[in-house]
Formats: sequence, structure tokens, C-alpha cells
Amino acid sequence: MYREQIKVLDCTIRDGGLINNHYFTDDFVRAVYQALSKSGIDYMEFGYRSSRELYPPKDYGAWKYCDDQKIREVIDGIESDIKISVMVDSYRVKEQEFAPADQSPVDMIRAATYVKYIDSAIDLINKCHDLGYETTCNIMAISKELEPDLVEALDQLAKTPVDVVYVVDSFGALYCEQIEYMVKLYQQHLPGKTIGIHCHNNQQLAFSNTIEGIIHNANYLDGSLFGIGRGPGNCCLELLIGFLKNPKFNLTPILKVIQDYMIPMRQEIEWGYIIPYFVTGILNEHPRFAIEQRQTEDKDKYAEFYEKMRLPQE
Amino acid sequence: MYREQIKVLDCTIRDGGLINNHYFTDDFVRAVYQALSKSGIDYMEFGYRSSRELYPPKDYGAWKYCDDQKIREVIDGIESDIKISVMVDSYRVKEQEFAPADQSPVDMIRAATYVKYIDSAIDLINKCHDLGYETTCNIMAISKELEPDLVEALDQLAKTPVDVVYVVDSFGALYCEQIEYMVKLYQQHLPGKTIGIHCHNNQQLAFSNTIEGIIHNANYLDGSLFGIGRGPGNCCLELLIGFLKNPKFNLTPILKVIQDYMIPMRQEIEWGYIIPYFVTGILNEHPRFAIEQRQTEDKDKYAEFYEKMRLPQE
Repeated sequence: MYREQIKVLDCTIRDGGLINNHYFTDDFVRAVYQALSKSGIDYMEFGYRSSRELYPPKDYGAWKYCDDQKIREVIDGIESDIKISVMVDSYRVKEQEFAPADQSPVDMIRAATYVKYIDSAIDLINKCHDLGYETTCNIMAISKELEPDLVEALDQLAKTPVDVVYVVDSFGALYCEQIEYMVKLYQQHLPGKTIGIHCHNNQQLAFSNTIEGIIHNANYLDGSLFGIGRGPGNCCLELLIGFLKNPKFNLTPILKVIQDYMIPMRQEIEWGYIIPYFVTGILNEHPRFAIEQRQTEDKDKYAEFYEKMRLPQE
Repeated sequence: MYREQIKVLDCTIRDGGLINNHYFTDDFVRAVYQALSKSGIDYMEFGYRSSRELYPPKDYGAWKYCDDQKIREVIDGIESDIKISVMVDSYRVKEQEFAPADQSPVDMIRAATYVKYIDSAIDLINKCHDLGYETTCNIMAISKELEPDLVEALDQLAKTPVDVVYVVDSFGALYCEQIEYMVKLYQQHLPGKTIGIHCHNNQQLAFSNTIEGIIHNANYLDGSLFGIGRGPGNCCLELLIGFLKNPKFNLTPILKVIQDYMIPMRQEIEWGYIIPYFVTGILNEHPRFAIEQRQTEDKDKYAEFYEKMRLPQE
């Protein structure tokens, strides 16, 4: 699949940071930045720009905040054309600062929200657009939303300067026909906007759902190295680059950083195809239930977990 | 997805046996048989019926041969409606014996072949059909075949009494649009026959490609417990049963046998998402190159492996 408009965004540091409270070493972040730059990836997401009031620095690593100065420090001296994004939970904006884009290493701000907080996302998008940033809106947990509510949010976004709106399968609950439906719904209600896709791998469908998005003209594609991300993780960046035929992409540096960093890291922190996350995926539930289960001594009692989860909550 | 005609076949013991020369314990095979029976799975494949002349018993476990007597011994005393299949490499038939179906615990013989050996598959299918067995033909490695050759084989099969013809993605090289193409091609050339689908998971596409098959009316679906199989393995049976909505299926016994047997086994023998198999998948190559790589001390040198593999062989 070669389509010039396709842009690939790596969210290794951002989504991976959800597993380890964003405590990645500078060495690792530099290695990822170098590898992605050599591979021709379009965007690298460094983490969240979160409020220190809401998330005290004693509890989180640097990539929870993604200060401009910290990003500059890490990328210093590395030749690269890659653009840099940070994500902001739009409904948790407090004292965070955003410099004008031309004074920041950040190129794109991604506003993460739920349907009910769409107004906060629109505020953030307007503000960041005016500062000169590219902007996206990533509406989470859409597999649990009523369609009229989702459509209303999309119609509101259509009137903003947002560049990209992402179909986000937060719970890894959707399969190809549902992805097709969502991508077409977004296109219908967002004329002229670019559609993106961000999938989770609970059911080993993150890559195939991303392909489904591509087939229906989603052009911003998220992936992460070896699929790292909370629980089942994301679409594997290497699978995506193996599939895309644009000669600007080069798989080799990605495989190198996987062998050097991701394989050892996978021994230390857990992500990937793990049955309790598959269970929350098929039941269209937040992964928190699986995360809790994996911290108990019953972590591999899959049958019991499924039986408990599948009964309606009283 | 609920469609009455859908039948699910578990190939845990057969495809998994390719990793360990078919040395599964009777205890394990019984546990799988019990779990699948309770889960409402339609068929369980016990292994190959191979020639002892070609494959001496000193080198292989019982499930390389699947003698009727051995199968009877293992299933003895377990209540079950599940049907039993064995696979035969039709181009390696020597002295193997096939009792009339009504004197055998086996219900279905699956003839595995390559396009060039299609005549041997047709011989075997005719013979087994006359003995009263259900029959399938599994044409392997179709991602490397010229279409006129494949079509000729399908046209020949159309004239046989074979019940099911499988689309087999041996190298894990195909994605959804190619699966759709193949399923439709098979249907076009096999009027009145049932189409099956058997996918490998090199690119994490085995489950989604199986869904793609279902969407286009493939009705015989292969899976294995926790995806066990050579290299990347197969479509995970649990994913498939989580997706299918036929109330005759029950996921819980499958999850139980995974937690009790497959998770410990995965510590001993390797299968799943492993980068060298992803590389052979995207390059449409036999997994043998990855298998060899995994046995060397360079087993995790993914970048070098990819660079070596992607260059045309001289």
C-alpha cells in the first residue's frame, strides 16, 4: 500500500509510558528518536504534557510532562526530519504552558478526550492552532458511546481548525467491519479533515484494523515499537512499515532498536497478547480490570476471570 | 457472527506437533480433547497419519502416525460429540492404512498438498471418500503459486467428492484483500463445495484473515489453543470463539486448558509473535529460514536477518 498522504506516528514513548509512569531513560528515548528518524517515520510522540498540579513530579518521569526544554535536551545533536508530537488530556488542562510553535521543538499537539469533554478538546485545539501547532483530536472509548453523542462531537469538531481526527479503539473491542463503519462515519461528519486511526491489540486486531482504516482512507496511522503500550499494547510499528510500500520508510533501523531495547525491556515490563486483556477486549471493557487481575496471584486464572467479567455487574 | 454452517476445527495437536516432533503426552491430548468437547468445538485434529517408512518411529511421537488404536486409547471414557480429523501429506503416502470410516474413530481425512501434487491429493480424497470419511483438501503455499496452476488444481478438485477445500496461507504472507480474493476464487471454481480457511500468524493477521474468510462465506475455520503452531503459529482458537456468537460454543473450558497447559508449555517451547517469522511473512518465504535463525546465537539479530533475507538470492 503506497499513498503519499499516509503519515505514520510512533507512540512508543507516550503509550509505553502508561506502563511505567513515563520513566524511560534519556538513552532509550534518544535511541528511539534516532531509529525512527532513520526509518523515515513522520511523527514521534514523546509523551503527555500533563499538569504538575494534578500529577506530582515525585510520581512520574519526565515524559509525563514533556517540557520543551527536556525534549530539546534529548534530541540535541541528532540529525532528523521527524516531527514531534505530545498528547494532552484536554479535560485535565490546568497550568501547563504551550510556547508558540515556532519557539518549541513540538510540531503537533494531540488532544485526547472523551465525547462528554469534547468542549475542552475544542478549546485546546483552538488555542494550540492559534499558537501555530498542528492539532489532532483523539476521542477515546468510542466503542461505548451512543452514536448521536459521537456524531454531535464530530459535527462540533468539523467547525474547528483541527487537522486530524482519530478513530480510537481504546478497548481493543472493534473488528474490521466496525472500523470501516467508524472511519466512514468520521469522514461523513468531518468533510475536508484528515482521519487517523489508533488501535489496541487486545484481540490481535490492531494491525489488521489499521489496514482496514488505510483501505478506507485513514491517513494518520499510529504504531509503537514491538507494539509496546498498556496491556495488549498497540499496532506494531514494524508490522505497519512492513506493509506500507512507500520507499521513504526503512524497516532495518526499527528492527535494530527492537532487538537492542524492546526485547530486553519486554523481560522487565509486561505487554502484548495476554488473555485477561483479550477478555476485556471481547467484552468491550476498560483494561483496568485486567490490569488489576495481573497484579494478583490469580493473574493466570483466565477461566475464572472471564466468568467473573462476563456476568452483568449488579 | 452467527452462521449455522460454520464449523471450527482445532489443530493444536497437529500443527503444534510440528514444533516438538509430535511428542505430546497422552495426558495433554486428553485434556485438550476434554476441553474442546466441552467448548462445543466441531473437530479436533490429532496429528498426521504419516508413513513409518518415511518417518521412522524412533524420531517421532505417536501423533505423527495417529493410529486408530492410539486415538481410541486416549479418548477412552470421555463423553464427547466432537469429530476427529487427521491430516495426511498426500504426496507422501506409502504404507499407511485407512480402515473403513465406520470402524475408525476418525471422521475426517484432510489431504495436505502442493499444487504440483494435486493428483496425489485427489487419489487420497477419492480413496478416503469411498471408505466413508469426510474429506478436505488443504493446498499449501498458494501465495507462491501462479494463478493458472492454482485454478487448474481447483477445477480438478471440483470434479471430486471432496467436501471442503481450504484456503491456506502457509507463509503468513497474505492480508485481508488477498484473502478475500482467494476465497472468492475458490468459490468460483468449486461450485457447491465448502470453503475453509487456515491462517498463520507471522504478521498477527491469522485471526483477522479468518474473520475476512468468514465475511466472504468460508465456513470451516482452523484455530489452535493460544495459537500454538510452528513459528508464529495459527489463529488463536480463543480469539475465534470469542468472536463467533453461536451459543453452542463455550469459551471457559478453552481458557482453562490454556491456563493449565499452554502457558507452562510456552515456557518450554517457542511459538508466537517472533520477529524473524514476521520477516519471512512479509517476504513471502517459508519459515524454515526463521527456524534456522532461531537455533543460532544470532537468534535476536533481527536487523541483520532482515537485511540478509530481503536481498534476492543469487
